[in-house]
Amino acid sequence: METTTAEKTHEVITSSELLNHFQGHRGLTRRIIEAFPEDAFFNHRIGGMRPFAEMVMELLGIAAPGIKEIATGKTAPLNEHFEHGNKKAELLELWDKATEEINTYWAQIKPEDFQKSIKIFGQYEGTVWSSIFYFIDNEIHHRGQGYVYLRSLGIEPPAFYER
Amino acid sequence: METTTAEKTHEVITSSELLNHFQGHRGLTRRIIEAFPEDAFFNHRIGGMRPFAEMVMELLGIAAPGIKEIATGKTAPLNEHFEHGNKKAELLELWDKATEEINTYWAQIKPEDFQKSIKIFGQYEGTVWSSIFYFIDNEIHHRGQGYVYLRSLGIEPPAFYER
Repeated sequence: METTTAEKTHEVITSSELLNHFQGHRGLTRRIIEAFPEDAFFNHRIGGMRPFAEMVMELLGIAAPGIKEIATGKTAPLNEHFEHGNKKAELLELWDKATEEINTYWAQIKPEDFQKSIKIFGQYEGTVWSSIFYFIDNEIHHRGQGYVYLRSLGIEPPAFYER
Repeated sequence: METTTAEKTHEVITSSELLNHFQGHRGLTRRIIEAFPEDAFFNHRIGGMRPFAEMVMELLGIAAPGIKEIATGKTAPLNEHFEHGNKKAELLELWDKATEEINTYWAQIKPEDFQKSIKIFGQYEGTVWSSIFYFIDNEIHHRGQGYVYLRSLGIEPPAFYER
């Protein structure tokens, strides 16, 4: 991916920088998924929380469908369940498919769209930018929880600052 | 705080929107600190990780000093240790002081600064925006870990989406 440097603009962050930032986070989350033993990925819990696999399905339900909805204006309800047969490889394949889909639909988001009001998944009111920030923040939040799961299993997670 | 609506601009996010976003996250982190029993805040650990109080001191060392450095150009080394006497109230007071300091110094950051290259804390290379995003992302990351700590203590944390 190319980063558009916006040295001559006064923008806080450009659209392509935000895409790179998002995909950088998604790359790290992918490495966290890979770091889990398969069984623990689907079953390990702390304090009654969901296994990391279920959090990952939430993220899969949000990222590509959310960007698609922003780009096309077509609303669809949130889906957080995917066929996986208790195989990490199945969800990793969906993860990679989502990476491509995000890139494709992001290219259709126009600069003037980010400040528009939307109701994402027909349910959550905000602007385009605040919705995308929510997607990213929510991923960081749950991935941080995945870090604790890994540590509690005695596994050293990939460094947070490496994207 | 006022939100500048940027409907007539093509900006992804404006400076004041990013400040509100940052402070919204900091408000939630404050409520997570409040949700901890005092003893657990300073001592509860999972998988050899730091108690939440130590993560909070890292966040205190980054947020206001980081924004101050960006606004003034004066570099100072990262400090993650603060006097607290094992009292949450001491760190909450520092948290609130940081909230004010961030608002004060943020007002001195010029729109054309966000794309500038900096070496924050004399150590980490990036742009102004990528540094600020790192401050926010790192806070979400550790706060997500705080959520697991609270759940493992049988405490229901404040909702993630409430800012």
